Amino acid sequence: MQTLIQSVLALQNDTLESVDVLLIGSQIHTVAPAGTIPVAPHQQVIDGQAKLLLPGFVNGHTHSSQVWQRGLIPQLPLELWLANVFDSTPQQLEQFYWGAVSTAVDTLLSGGTCVMDHAYVLPGQEMETVDALVRGYRAVGIRAVIAPLIMDLPFASGFPKGCLLPQSASPKSAAELLALMEAIIAEFHDPDSGIYIGLGPTGFHRCSDELLSGCGEISDRLHLCYHTHLLETRAQHRLAQERYGISAVQHLKDLGCLTPRTSLAHGVWIDDADIELLASSGSTLVHNPVSNLRLGSGLAPILKCRQAGLNVALGCDGAASNDAQNLLEVLKLGIILHTVTEQDYESWLTPEQVVQMAAVGGAKAVNLGDRTGTIAPGMDADLVLYNLDHPSMLPCTNPLQLLVLGRPTEVVESAWVQGRQLIDQGQVLTVDTAVLHNVLRHRPQTVQKTESPHHPVESHYRDVMLKR
Amino acid sequence: MQTLIQSVLALQNDTLESVDVLLIGSQIHTVAPAGTIPVAPHQQVIDGQAKLLLPGFVNGHTHSSQVWQRGLIPQLPLELWLANVFDSTPQQLEQFYWGAVSTAVDTLLSGGTCVMDHAYVLPGQEMETVDALVRGYRAVGIRAVIAPLIMDLPFASGFPKGCLLPQSASPKSAAELLALMEAIIAEFHDPDSGIYIGLGPTGFHRCSDELLSGCGEISDRLHLCYHTHLLETRAQHRLAQERYGISAVQHLKDLGCLTPRTSLAHGVWIDDADIELLASSGSTLVHNPVSNLRLGSGLAPILKCRQAGLNVALGCDGAASNDAQNLLEVLKLGIILHTVTEQDYESWLTPEQVVQMAAVGGAKAVNLGDRTGTIAPGMDADLVLYNLDHPSMLPCTNPLQLLVLGRPTEVVESAWVQGRQLIDQGQVLTVDTAVLHNVLRHRPQTVQKTESPHHPVESHYRDVMLKR
Repeated sequence: MQTLIQSVLALQNDTLESVDVLLIGSQIHTVAPAGTIPVAPHQQVIDGQAKLLLPGFVNGHTHSSQVWQRGLIPQLPLELWLANVFDSTPQQLEQFYWGAVSTAVDTLLSGGTCVMDHAYVLPGQEMETVDALVRGYRAVGIRAVIAPLIMDLPFASGFPKGCLLPQSASPKSAAELLALMEAIIAEFHDPDSGIYIGLGPTGFHRCSDELLSGCGEISDRLHLCYHTHLLETRAQHRLAQERYGISAVQHLKDLGCLTPRTSLAHGVWIDDADIELLASSGSTLVHNPVSNLRLGSGLAPILKCRQAGLNVALGCDGAASNDAQNLLEVLKLGIILHTVTEQDYESWLTPEQVVQMAAVGGAKAVNLGDRTGTIAPGMDADLVLYNLDHPSMLPCTNPLQLLVLGRPTEVVESAWVQGRQLIDQGQVLTVDTAVLHNVLRHRPQTVQKTESPHHPVESHYRDVMLKR
Repeated sequence: MQTLIQSVLALQNDTLESVDVLLIGSQIHTVAPAGTIPVAPHQQVIDGQAKLLLPGFVNGHTHSSQVWQRGLIPQLPLELWLANVFDSTPQQLEQFYWGAVSTAVDTLLSGGTCVMDHAYVLPGQEMETVDALVRGYRAVGIRAVIAPLIMDLPFASGFPKGCLLPQSASPKSAAELLALMEAIIAEFHDPDSGIYIGLGPTGFHRCSDELLSGCGEISDRLHLCYHTHLLETRAQHRLAQERYGISAVQHLKDLGCLTPRTSLAHGVWIDDADIELLASSGSTLVHNPVSNLRLGSGLAPILKCRQAGLNVALGCDGAASNDAQNLLEVLKLGIILHTVTEQDYESWLTPEQVVQMAAVGGAKAVNLGDRTGTIAPGMDADLVLYNLDHPSMLPCTNPLQLLVLGRPTEVVESAWVQGRQLIDQGQVLTVDTAVLHNVLRHRPQTVQKTESPHHPVESHYRDVMLKR
């Protein structure tokens, strides 16, 4: 299969250029000045006039099953919000399948071609849950890294002074979880088809050193992504001091968990020394600006990170803490939010930089920097074609600025993953979205609506975190 | 004309209730429990199942002609951004007409029924510009307050130590501007038809005391809105100290400019004493969170304002500083942004509160609190009906939370202004939006693209504001 996109405005390094792009099989074969690649027989030819071609973005952090909890959880700080999320989490395998389908569709229709799914998996049905997720992502055809959320410490341990709380039943042991991950990897990791398994210890706050470093060992041995939450909240920052007496980042470094395959979600509470450690390790910070505001977690120091040479990617986070799963919205908040902490506008991110953060930064975050993230010969054809003629992209000024600083709606015209066209004319080619929407309309009654934030842990949280 | 909306989920005080709503002529006639209002002959009957009825929001601050500059101006702090805006401002009267049409359409399709247009008017063609705006708003049928931007101090005076800058030609004198406003009011102020003229001195930074207080006098005498920029930036805060030696808010109070008809855009740099003064005067602060981040202006203290009893409304600001004109996006950032400055989640705004801020707060901001902003008998029928069955509103959890914290797209099904239906099935009934989009596609060449932020005032700004 060959596809020729003619005379399209495309991101080349940091500028937009008018080019012809030839896709052959799963790859980008040629990028040449507009009008210079001749049409060959049996080629699909796409007129790129008034269109914009960008590398597919990576949604560097989400939790797909939270699609079912969108609009459900009150605005609360993470620790109390989590209690509500646990109370209303999906229980049926088919919900996980549709959660993956929904996440994949939302990602594609907002410029993404790859998802890092830090996936909740049903206790006792871990293999079946991952199977449902894989089926969902395969049905749509998007690239996905599935990093099952694993933890071996009880919920209460995630709170500062959590030892004072009633202790819930312990999850599986580290050894059991590591064995489970080996089984999941053996069964489902399939890079050629665009489905990857990653190691996803929830975060230091709910994982023993044995689990954190055991995941690191598997990641090293099999060259898999390592993905974890890091210092999302002030409470986690306090907990790290309480538990380790040193920075959580230093602790992860000492355990051998920080490598170029490691991506860390949030990092709102990292300090300058942490940033240096992360940068020197070649790891990636995944910035989730919408979720961080929604949960009141704070402002991640992403300008400092970039200045220190730390790779930064962007994520939506799950639909329970960002009730949209729209990457363009994340890019917009990503580019405007950091002005709060930086007065000198010469340091502010440009539209080109935030697009590169989502594309190149995202590709590196999921260990695919050599395969995707740029429009260049030999790279996989993970591409998104935007319609610049859509009313939400008018008037015709600066296309990247309109895309990133406007509120584009239904502007994704086509998308390809590994050369396979998944979106055409804004429609998903691989799944029937009407069926998806019908399923979402008939939410199973097992999802409970949690009305009150007055969970048993609340008074503990107020005592420890809010007494002044 | 009578319209009966049956069994619709509607905002009543602070809760959603299932009701029947009967509109007669321009007003809401009856609100009663669902299923209790009988259908009468010749009524339009609307099935409210799976729909949400809210009072129309007010876009409390925008500049309609900036539609033409959407996506055009680089990210810069206000003072340098303004220089770029001036360099590329529309020059043709028809652009003002279409700017108003576009602003009205974007407002209606994102939940608004009224616009405060702090309108740039062409020097020497002020009456003609207002005429073009009035024609635009009338064509669509939305309510609009047009407050022409007037100023009698040169551009350089808006900078701290601006006396060191080359001085541009002086604008009109205060007396000339006040006479002009009297003429504009006489010609165009027409409350019955939903077109209002307001007094819109740009801001203290570019207005003499004579102009500021003269506008106050007209506002008092004719009961018109008074709308002005207030302490949007750190530079304005410094300028106020330099010029008055007291707070700009105290100065406006002393000039008699703060009344219940006054609304002040931004107020990012107001302090606790300012908030008390504003609250006691009965004025309104218009919060523009997207624009404030886009220009790096900072975080307005809206929680403190509300706690002090100061009315807060929401605004998009112009399309040159918020490249979208979508009220729902402003509500989303409005509800999540202030968590940055407030750790205690019990103080965070709820979806109900931010909706009320946009509706009731907005109505009060434009001096229409007795006519619109709530769904109650005797109020004008300024209403918006949302489709809860749209994919962007699934799954069916909490409708207000999905609307405010999600990223709703094309969910406005119907909208009425003064009882007249302007939107049906998501389509504008009064103007042909295809024509609008065609006009926007063919942007006149007189709009110049400004590539470089290196305007002559830049080195001054860096010296005064960024030297550390």
